[in-house]
Amino acid sequence: MAEAVVLLSGGLDSSTVLAIARERGFEITALTFDYGQKHRREVDGARRIAGHLKVKKHIVMPLDIGRYVSTALTTGSMEIPQGRTRNEMSSGIPSTYVPSRNTVFLSIAASIAESAGAEAVFIAANSVDFSGYPDCTPEFLEAFQKVLDVGTKAGKEGRGIRIEAPILLMSKSQIIREAVRLGVPLELTWSCYRGGAKACGRCDSCLLRLEGFSKAGIDDPLEYEVRR
Amino acid sequence: MAEAVVLLSGGLDSSTVLAIARERGFEITALTFDYGQKHRREVDGARRIAGHLKVKKHIVMPLDIGRYVSTALTTGSMEIPQGRTRNEMSSGIPSTYVPSRNTVFLSIAASIAESAGAEAVFIAANSVDFSGYPDCTPEFLEAFQKVLDVGTKAGKEGRGIRIEAPILLMSKSQIIREAVRLGVPLELTWSCYRGGAKACGRCDSCLLRLEGFSKAGIDDPLEYEVRR
Repeated sequence: MAEAVVLLSGGLDSSTVLAIARERGFEITALTFDYGQKHRREVDGARRIAGHLKVKKHIVMPLDIGRYVSTALTTGSMEIPQGRTRNEMSSGIPSTYVPSRNTVFLSIAASIAESAGAEAVFIAANSVDFSGYPDCTPEFLEAFQKVLDVGTKAGKEGRGIRIEAPILLMSKSQIIREAVRLGVPLELTWSCYRGGAKACGRCDSCLLRLEGFSKAGIDDPLEYEVRR
Repeated sequence: MAEAVVLLSGGLDSSTVLAIARERGFEITALTFDYGQKHRREVDGARRIAGHLKVKKHIVMPLDIGRYVSTALTTGSMEIPQGRTRNEMSSGIPSTYVPSRNTVFLSIAASIAESAGAEAVFIAANSVDFSGYPDCTPEFLEAFQKVLDVGTKAGKEGRGIRIEAPILLMSKSQIIREAVRLGVPLELTWSCYRGGAKACGRCDSCLLRLEGFSKAGIDDPLEYEVRR
């Protein structure tokens, strides 16, 4: 059975990607990073989702970068933007950008994949809704693929490790429909950038999620502080 | 003052690269990974070398990949090769290869560099003596540079983060001469892949080091179990 490593944050997107990888017949190692994110409760969600979707193995890896990087996702003194319009969201790189995050995550995933003899690494990069993140674009993924092709033993020996980004060009509502079709436990997925008891309903991630559910005509089972 | 992040393992090569970066006028954050390597004593060496060469900051980051990767450098049941000839060393990728190691190290270094406003990341990749490692080649470094150019905020905004590999094409004896010229404390550098009280003198790394010192006509201050 072909093996794959799936980057699983515990959010809606990566949970859907996990379900897609499973549907494609891969035996899966899910990989979640605890990097000091304020919304660390997504890590617990990831554990439950990995269990629900029956992965072969789930690795939760502590990663001590939160203390050294400047991003609103880990830095207490930086505010997570709230109540932004779609125009504001696409007007540049947001403060929730984590420098080189996907490069770090993909490289560790590739390291584990190569050791396990896995042929693919799945990532929930999406260039439609979060257009501001430079490490979620097709050109970034192509460049990273090249790194694996020339810089790993698997690449040199022609087996290679393939980066798969199956939701790269999907809208949020398409992703939600896929999630429903594949039986992703939506109630366990966590998207909010804040780590509160309820999703805040005001950060970029909540706003995009709510808009996606609304467009898909599906009810979001999460509780929110505010729903506009 | 321009800033740089320098990957410092505590070995001869990366200590020399640190001294080169300093000579070029950079204020330096040194970054060392404790990833479960058998020769973990290099981490203590790195601390002393960073102090000796007066870096601005030294980050020692635990990285929990040792448990998940197959390499003779971390896996107890895999033997570190001994007594190999130069021909044997260059006959393929050795078992001491750590999948995607430099990709992981460079991506975390780039993340810290971007947050600190540093303009360069220095790495002690060398494609002469350790020709077997695919992540020490010019083409790997070029591919990784492209990832930073397209996948980071700094790259997108035209500032960029430059990968510098100043010893890429130097022979071991040239590196040793540079180290001496720049006042690198050779007695603190650790190259042996085994973590013994003395360097073993038989692993690839010891053999290349000893050969380099011999060719440079300089005495290696380290104690060895065996010197051929």
